[in-house]
Amino acid sequence: MRTVFIENVRPELDAGRYPVKREVGDRFEVSADILKEGHDVLAAVVRYREKDDSNSGGDWQETPMRFVDNDRWSGSFELTANTRYLYTVIAWADAFLSWRNEFQKKLEAGQNIKLELEEGRLLIVDAASRAASPFRQQITLILDQFADAEHELRVELLLSERVQRLMQQAPDRSLATTYDRELEVTVDRVRARYAAWYEMVPRSQGAVPGKSATFADCIARLPEIRSLGFDVVYLTPIHPIGRTHRKGPNNTLHAGPDDAGSFYAIGNEEGGHKAIHAELGTLDDFRNFAGEARKLEMEIALDIAIQCSPDHPYIKEHPEWFSYRPDGTIKHAENPPKKYQDIVNVNFSGEHREALWREWRDVFLFWIEQGVKIFRVDNPHTKPVQFWEWLIADVQHAHPDVIFLAEAFTRPKLLQALAKAGFTQSYTYFTWRNFKQELTEYLTELTQTEVREYLRPNFFVSTPDILPGFLQTGGRPAHQIRLVLAATLSSVYGIYNSFELCENAAVPNSEEFLHSEKYEYKVWDWNRLGNIKDYITAINRIRAENPALHEFDNLRFYPADDDNILFYGKADRDYDNLIFIAVNLDPFEPHQAVLEFPLFEMGIKRDRTFQVEELLSGKKHLWRGARHSVDLDPQVNPAEIYRISLWAYKDYAEPCF
Amino acid sequence: MRTVFIENVRPELDAGRYPVKREVGDRFEVSADILKEGHDVLAAVVRYREKDDSNSGGDWQETPMRFVDNDRWSGSFELTANTRYLYTVIAWADAFLSWRNEFQKKLEAGQNIKLELEEGRLLIVDAASRAASPFRQQITLILDQFADAEHELRVELLLSERVQRLMQQAPDRSLATTYDRELEVTVDRVRARYAAWYEMVPRSQGAVPGKSATFADCIARLPEIRSLGFDVVYLTPIHPIGRTHRKGPNNTLHAGPDDAGSFYAIGNEEGGHKAIHAELGTLDDFRNFAGEARKLEMEIALDIAIQCSPDHPYIKEHPEWFSYRPDGTIKHAENPPKKYQDIVNVNFSGEHREALWREWRDVFLFWIEQGVKIFRVDNPHTKPVQFWEWLIADVQHAHPDVIFLAEAFTRPKLLQALAKAGFTQSYTYFTWRNFKQELTEYLTELTQTEVREYLRPNFFVSTPDILPGFLQTGGRPAHQIRLVLAATLSSVYGIYNSFELCENAAVPNSEEFLHSEKYEYKVWDWNRLGNIKDYITAINRIRAENPALHEFDNLRFYPADDDNILFYGKADRDYDNLIFIAVNLDPFEPHQAVLEFPLFEMGIKRDRTFQVEELLSGKKHLWRGARHSVDLDPQVNPAEIYRISLWAYKDYAEPCF
Repeated sequence: MRTVFIENVRPELDAGRYPVKREVGDRFEVSADILKEGHDVLAAVVRYREKDDSNSGGDWQETPMRFVDNDRWSGSFELTANTRYLYTVIAWADAFLSWRNEFQKKLEAGQNIKLELEEGRLLIVDAASRAASPFRQQITLILDQFADAEHELRVELLLSERVQRLMQQAPDRSLATTYDRELEVTVDRVRARYAAWYEMVPRSQGAVPGKSATFADCIARLPEIRSLGFDVVYLTPIHPIGRTHRKGPNNTLHAGPDDAGSFYAIGNEEGGHKAIHAELGTLDDFRNFAGEARKLEMEIALDIAIQCSPDHPYIKEHPEWFSYRPDGTIKHAENPPKKYQDIVNVNFSGEHREALWREWRDVFLFWIEQGVKIFRVDNPHTKPVQFWEWLIADVQHAHPDVIFLAEAFTRPKLLQALAKAGFTQSYTYFTWRNFKQELTEYLTELTQTEVREYLRPNFFVSTPDILPGFLQTGGRPAHQIRLVLAATLSSVYGIYNSFELCENAAVPNSEEFLHSEKYEYKVWDWNRLGNIKDYITAINRIRAENPALHEFDNLRFYPADDDNILFYGKADRDYDNLIFIAVNLDPFEPHQAVLEFPLFEMGIKRDRTFQVEELLSGKKHLWRGARHSVDLDPQVNPAEIYRISLWAYKDYAEPCF
Repeated sequence: MRTVFIENVRPELDAGRYPVKREVGDRFEVSADILKEGHDVLAAVVRYREKDDSNSGGDWQETPMRFVDNDRWSGSFELTANTRYLYTVIAWADAFLSWRNEFQKKLEAGQNIKLELEEGRLLIVDAASRAASPFRQQITLILDQFADAEHELRVELLLSERVQRLMQQAPDRSLATTYDRELEVTVDRVRARYAAWYEMVPRSQGAVPGKSATFADCIARLPEIRSLGFDVVYLTPIHPIGRTHRKGPNNTLHAGPDDAGSFYAIGNEEGGHKAIHAELGTLDDFRNFAGEARKLEMEIALDIAIQCSPDHPYIKEHPEWFSYRPDGTIKHAENPPKKYQDIVNVNFSGEHREALWREWRDVFLFWIEQGVKIFRVDNPHTKPVQFWEWLIADVQHAHPDVIFLAEAFTRPKLLQALAKAGFTQSYTYFTWRNFKQELTEYLTELTQTEVREYLRPNFFVSTPDILPGFLQTGGRPAHQIRLVLAATLSSVYGIYNSFELCENAAVPNSEEFLHSEKYEYKVWDWNRLGNIKDYITAINRIRAENPALHEFDNLRFYPADDDNILFYGKADRDYDNLIFIAVNLDPFEPHQAVLEFPLFEMGIKRDRTFQVEELLSGKKHLWRGARHSVDLDPQVNPAEIYRISLWAYKDYAEPCF
């Protein structure tokens, strides 16, 4: 019988259909409406365990919930392992606490409480029969003391803290209610939430024009990427590239014999998604590259694009995985009226789908064997959500440390559906959100609504496919502005190589890079004039040194009285690290604004002085009051980042020496 | 396999754990996020049936859903029966619509579409094999026409509306996805939403001081109550009253031999909850009374208070239903330090609960047999929510027209829990919400949040237990103000007899009526000076004549630039009946405000004239523009109620005769 009403358990996604996400080391707070008719005193616990029973942590554990307000209860436990946990809520009317509560009121009202005293004793007798050692012995001792005591001492004994604590060891939970559902939380490693990504096109890392770079060239680039402050090096596809319908420079339809081809037209007679393009090197070379990255405390992320060039080995080996036209020819990718003749899609819903799904999972497992633990998935929104839900759960069951980033540039609800289905992180609309109102609205949705429970936004400033108009027109200041926004609005962000050089030549009226390295061999001068490498290094250092910037859902916006200036702040969980950021969103003109600091939230009294350090310039200030003016010149200081420290205040009341 | 993602189905309460509520004749709208990877064209239906399979309407029916925006779909069906319906959503990728969509794009782009045409034909061949007569024959005819036609005609044929309509008769739903849950809607009769209640203490309806009235006296009162505009006559408990610990006048502890006793101390040697107090009459007299009410198109509501006087027959017949102290005495009701010695509570959770629960259900069934279809349940929040959920579902299974009103004056979440568990209506905090901000906030919660899906607020201006301070101090205008608010903010409301006389003498520093008829025989002069019967009659007439006032969740608040004046409006479903109400919330002083009418919502262009009728005075106006001033004098016109009509406008473009 359900004696207690347990509702609105949070977090909970779609009645527990999907897990929420957290990271190792988080304290996980579970709250619920818990209520019952009448005046009983309730007690409740959060019950939880790791999901995989084969783990040592498979037994249910409990942590007490406390009453908050208005029938709301809350309890928490620490997420110590990189795994999935189950949790639910149990609540009951506590007979002893109810008795104690009423007994005290009657006592205070001076009523005759002789019968009540006996009722209390009987509850303790009951508890003794339920309690385990050593509590049973202790309870029996209480009963002996009670038997020997006078009335006043009996009252005192039964109301004592000691008895209350003991009784909590053996509550009568025979009529306890367990919440209808077991909920789930996926606990990822911290890098799922806090990381700086550097997207590298491996073949562009060399120095010989018209020729592919090798993994050796990539290795040579690693120390610089590390010194810029990145910790994930994400490679665009490294597989053999198809010959049939190969694309020429600038996405032209016909490639010459020396043209590189798009690395998204994957597979030829040399192999498919488990093979490496011979120009880049061998599997050993790749392993070597990944090992060098590890030495520098960086991780490799691979791009997995589930699509085949017409030359992919699967087409011969598994014709049953593809779709065919009435004339027997294979069906190419298309989005009418556009045709993609260099790409063939597999048929995820055909009758051979089981083997097909397993094969794609094996592609991930193959690279996991090579030491890759982070995958960026290309166009996940053109494959079934159900497929991803299965694949990610299956892979993470054996490898909970694997991270999946969804390139879900699609409709908002499909983007969210992929995140719910299991993707660890997602690309977002940040790439196109430039101005104050749209940034505030979008970031509020990402960080303050239910979305934050399952979608970790990885903010990319640009990608090989997307050079946003803001960067095309705003030059160097625009690159600095977008970098600060990406790196501080979210806790995980990325840049695509050549962003540090402010490369922004576009195909006219498009978001495509001109002479995109998607279609040709490219050589970059990584020290080109006008680069913002120092700025990137500074921003990544500030991120590393300030735990407030390691989280994303702690973001809050604050008033700035000019629409060109965005003002926001973050605090770490202990409120020790307080960071505020003011950004001029206009790359062309200086703007001034009065910023309004949230003194109350900051724990600062209105007339107290506090210390402010601007972290990009190193300048320090002593400020008083909530309102402070800022002048942001895109050519000089497009953004300022303030760290607040309290100024110790000695009160007259304190002893003087 | 779940090919389509169906989420956020609305309405849905706690993942379908509880039904939502509607009334017979409503169009029931179901909406959902429906999405799938890729570019397929989707189709979806709402599937529904009456819950009780023994009904003729037990088969599943379907109504199409249409795409709204941002992956949101919506469909609706009419709720024709007073019963419970089940509903869910089914969606699939429609192969023919997807083909048609891509085919058109390729055709427009001038591409070779020979193979596509054949793919389309094959889809029609498939459909022919699925279709039932007569659609199969019609599809076969299409295929014959296709075979005989030239290329151009074939294209035209396959894109024709006729083929599209036919194909919708036989969609390939083999990969359709059905939403995980079957949801439920309780469809009550309209009186559950729209009614005016008159609470009558039967023993106070007579004319002989110190003596109980009879049902004959009550019958004599019915025509007046009808003429005031009420359609539910709700009687406080009519059962025998206990003698032991009977309360005297003004809730004193000792009653004299002629004291009436509280009608909530139910049961004595003459009977319990199925018996009638001999002073009022016999069961036949009661039936006669109910019959007379029916003749006047009024219904009787009975008050069911699940509690016993110490003299109730249950105590002797079923001692196992009660709780006992360690000394063997029966446990009286208490809320420490308060004691209620004239009342004994049953033990709902004891081992004999099954028989006990059934007995209380039988009490309701007994009165249903006597023709009572509306019950007001006293203190439901001191009995298990689970008990009510079972009882109401069980009773309504056989008697779907029975209405339960919860006197849930308790914590907000318990009040809501009782509504979710099945109570048709609930008392609310309206009784204590007097001023602009608190009324606006509370009514917005009741009418604009999920609460409206399950909680129908029955607004009582006062009860035998509650004479609010506002009525105690505000006199006649306060009574008029509260009446207008109750009767127009909600669609179902009630007054307690003597409210029409503005009776407001209170026990000092309490909300108790002085000389409350709960404890004594009372004789009222129903035509006492200062009564507001004409005002009540007018308000109830305005309610009856304006369908906008028959609903509660159509309430919207609009600006009035004085905090003493509340301004709000309601429209019926077709937007034919537009009602706006301005109320002066201050019973002491006149106040003026500029009201701002929502011209856009009203469908009125800014510079067009519209007609306004003030329904209490009958005055008519022609107004233009959104802003209009109002002057409300509590002694003259504490409220104004406007009905808006459009003024037909003849444009120059229209023909002149």
